[in-house]
Amino acid sequence: MGSKVLTKDAQRFMVDCLRAAGAASKPAQQQAELLIQADRVGHPSHGMNRLELYVNDIQTGACEPNNEPKILKETEATAWVDSCNVLGATSSHFCMDLAISKACKAGVGWVSAKGCNHNGILGFWAQKAAKAGMIGLAFTNTSPVSAPTRSKKAALGTNPLSVVAPGAQNELFYLDMATTAVAYGKIEMQRRKGEPLHPGWAQGTDGKETIDAEEAAKARCLMPLGGGELTSGYKGYGLGAMVELFCGILSGARYGHHVRVWTLTGPSGKANLGHCFAAINPNSFAPGFQDRVADIMHHWRSLEPTDPCLRVMCPGDKERKNEQEAECTGTVSYTPSQIKTSAALAKKLNVTPMQVTADCGTN
Amino acid sequence: MGSKVLTKDAQRFMVDCLRAAGAASKPAQQQAELLIQADRVGHPSHGMNRLELYVNDIQTGACEPNNEPKILKETEATAWVDSCNVLGATSSHFCMDLAISKACKAGVGWVSAKGCNHNGILGFWAQKAAKAGMIGLAFTNTSPVSAPTRSKKAALGTNPLSVVAPGAQNELFYLDMATTAVAYGKIEMQRRKGEPLHPGWAQGTDGKETIDAEEAAKARCLMPLGGGELTSGYKGYGLGAMVELFCGILSGARYGHHVRVWTLTGPSGKANLGHCFAAINPNSFAPGFQDRVADIMHHWRSLEPTDPCLRVMCPGDKERKNEQEAECTGTVSYTPSQIKTSAALAKKLNVTPMQVTADCGTN
Repeated sequence: MGSKVLTKDAQRFMVDCLRAAGAASKPAQQQAELLIQADRVGHPSHGMNRLELYVNDIQTGACEPNNEPKILKETEATAWVDSCNVLGATSSHFCMDLAISKACKAGVGWVSAKGCNHNGILGFWAQKAAKAGMIGLAFTNTSPVSAPTRSKKAALGTNPLSVVAPGAQNELFYLDMATTAVAYGKIEMQRRKGEPLHPGWAQGTDGKETIDAEEAAKARCLMPLGGGELTSGYKGYGLGAMVELFCGILSGARYGHHVRVWTLTGPSGKANLGHCFAAINPNSFAPGFQDRVADIMHHWRSLEPTDPCLRVMCPGDKERKNEQEAECTGTVSYTPSQIKTSAALAKKLNVTPMQVTADCGTN
Repeated sequence: MGSKVLTKDAQRFMVDCLRAAGAASKPAQQQAELLIQADRVGHPSHGMNRLELYVNDIQTGACEPNNEPKILKETEATAWVDSCNVLGATSSHFCMDLAISKACKAGVGWVSAKGCNHNGILGFWAQKAAKAGMIGLAFTNTSPVSAPTRSKKAALGTNPLSVVAPGAQNELFYLDMATTAVAYGKIEMQRRKGEPLHPGWAQGTDGKETIDAEEAAKARCLMPLGGGELTSGYKGYGLGAMVELFCGILSGARYGHHVRVWTLTGPSGKANLGHCFAAINPNSFAPGFQDRVADIMHHWRSLEPTDPCLRVMCPGDKERKNEQEAECTGTVSYTPSQIKTSAALAKKLNVTPMQVTADCGTN
């Protein structure tokens, strides 16, 4: 659904916009590569959709794309990094490269960074380690939109985590998840469709669980993974808190309730998010790691499904299918509203707009 | 509720039983210290309740309590360990001591072990690192009782994870959770009470979600954290799979569907579980770690609750309160059925039974 754009053209457009805003060529290209990957694997909320926010951050000075991240402290296996407000892709490449090189020698590399900006789909970073034959881990804190169990208001972000590992026979274990029940985009989608939410997704302004999408949009307060207390929502709260430990608290960045709200309406200040990256080298453990990864993934896919029409999938199967489709067609799809926003941005920044190659119906 | 027993006497009884079964003094004491801690913090399913299973494993030869774990491969920051079928406490002390000593020098220590037996409450192990001033992580795989999203049958364990971190002002961030919606014990409890389950806890024999406790007990198939697909149960499935990556798959132990079922009915074979332990040294990152831990925990507790009668808690507050009560009274409580089982075990092994000091009502 939506309009098809050549992937190369969409990526070129992203680079042009980031450069027009003030980023040098390399950081603009790395950031565009990150964003286009989100669109390719089917997570459009983290792709082109966010371009304007990054442009805005550069223009207000909240992001300084041409700085360089620096190591503040390091050991054989760890590093504490100051990302110095660069774009998320620049600092995440820097940190994950560090984690991988440490894991090559020490078996594990653990890097925590302050002074960060949003770094798109986390799976991109964990997968960077997997491409080097390792288990990759990535964590980030985000603006507070999730209520600790029993709390009337939000105090933690969606605080996602990602774990990616390579398997034999070209398998890839790819987990990239918010520690809230759903991401905020799902509330927005139900609201647009005029449909109710599912129980356990969000709280209303009174702090109680709501299935009213309008009320949930007003409250902006997601429930942690697990939903209410009876279905163990406190575990999702605990996981979000764990991510915060690794990110804001370990790195000395903003944490929890101290993280800024990310908006387009004027300068919201430097983000100073906390990120955390790790690489674990399977060569330091039992031989045959990749074979076992492939074996267990094959087993999961072979399980008898409860509903014969809904096959059991492995973490990452959906993303992989979307990526393969994007690869085949050489295109990505955008909603009419995204196309419109991008055209306006092109005009504003005086860059060549994207070319729509085909319209595939309205969204 | 139940019968009170002096903590010291309960622990003495555990040591006596394990020694009578064939364990030497040190492993018996370490295992008893682990089990009694579960009873003290309010997780009785992992305490005295499991003693008979451990005794049985020793008697059938599935567990070899007097072996010694050995390092198979190591780097500055990692170790691959063969636990050689010792009791869970023996190998977990060995592995977490290794992780801590590596993290002292290298900033992080990551240890994965095969040949393991059940190691009780995971929080005990993560907390061991926190006592040394570090963030502790612990993971274990378990017998398959959880269905990957869309699967009719179980293929993963409850695969718990634990993260514990020390805070200033005597704070302790303590997360210890199964990656399933609930532990199997909660199904059992509803069944005994003749009450229905909550949605999202378990599947029936047809693979569909059920709230019928009898049906769920028959199927023995828990749902992952998050419940069904619409409430993001696939995230819980992904987390359980992540734990399996760190445990069975990294260490070369049994994994996923290959893990044995743990029963009392005859020799079920060597468990060969996989464990994983990590310690992260905050001294290798931003100064002030413990202050930030305390600050965010104080903030969470200060949040306005949705229901004024239900205060917002931090991960670990419940366990801490239970532990303090146990400390004050010097006693732990057991159900009448546990007292009965323990008395029978005392007779069978010819050891001095526990002395009940007070009855506080039934069950």
